[in-house]
Amino acid sequence: MDKLELKNMVRNIPDFPTPGVMFRDITTVLKDPKGLVLAVDAIAESLQGIDFDLVLGPESRGFIFGVPLAYKLQKGFVPARKVGKLPAETAKKSYALEYGTAEIEIHRDAISANSKVVIVDDLLATGGTAKAVADLVTELGAKVVAMSFLIELEQLKGRKTLADYENVKSVLVY
Amino acid sequence: MDKLELKNMVRNIPDFPTPGVMFRDITTVLKDPKGLVLAVDAIAESLQGIDFDLVLGPESRGFIFGVPLAYKLQKGFVPARKVGKLPAETAKKSYALEYGTAEIEIHRDAISANSKVVIVDDLLATGGTAKAVADLVTELGAKVVAMSFLIELEQLKGRKTLADYENVKSVLVY
Repeated sequence: MDKLELKNMVRNIPDFPTPGVMFRDITTVLKDPKGLVLAVDAIAESLQGIDFDLVLGPESRGFIFGVPLAYKLQKGFVPARKVGKLPAETAKKSYALEYGTAEIEIHRDAISANSKVVIVDDLLATGGTAKAVADLVTELGAKVVAMSFLIELEQLKGRKTLADYENVKSVLVY
Repeated sequence: MDKLELKNMVRNIPDFPTPGVMFRDITTVLKDPKGLVLAVDAIAESLQGIDFDLVLGPESRGFIFGVPLAYKLQKGFVPARKVGKLPAETAKKSYALEYGTAEIEIHRDAISANSKVVIVDDLLATGGTAKAVADLVTELGAKVVAMSFLIELEQLKGRKTLADYENVKSVLVY
């Protein structure tokens, strides 16, 4: 896996969404057939040796790498969604954002007790979303056995937020 | 491809999101490793013989089948997103919803003139989102060569909305 090649496909956009922030844009990876394959395969590689049943991805960018990973490895995929979109009974969790709070939910019957879950998202920033989703999975009686992110923004200390969880992986670190 | 097996994995939830509506829930397809593979492979099969470069999926459920399809067929993937989320220069389109309007956008540089684009989404209902996205692609000088949906709700006459476009495919019809 050529991580440098993959990193070169990420577009760096200064001052988005706010001044002083360097946005790491993955759309330039996705639109390149080779980039998409490199990214999904690198996430799969980061999980080698870890036994799991389900991939869980938070809406909406967690769907982008979570579903092809599940497809490739023949696992099930469970979406964590914004409130009100899932039609059956859900478990919910609020978490803090920079301004205000957000809430995310999972179908209660999507995750069996004792199943082994991997959380996938494009970006590990503060870790707030991943922690909320992981705590939900844990409350449902399943086990979060790993998380994998295409990009980790080290400065934002997401790993500290996720300290209760093992096997926190990332492919590209900034 | 066993369409009946796939259809049996879709959960039917009455009165969601409003009374009288039968919601076709694909999360039960996704959480089953076999269901996910059947669904993605059926969408791929619906596109057999069609030459294309890019898969375009509207946020957020269009990501669910669009990305693994692109991954499987080694095409690029372009997300159409809600306004304000894409960091580079975009083209935008408003479209009517049942109540009010929505707006969707695409990175201008994600789609080269003359590229051949397939639009993928989980559901063809009224066709409003697909039409807005297809018109955007056309305005950017590219060609929409096909669309494929896992589920088509025939009563809502989405095909009529999409009459300007060729190769409108669906896997499961209700």
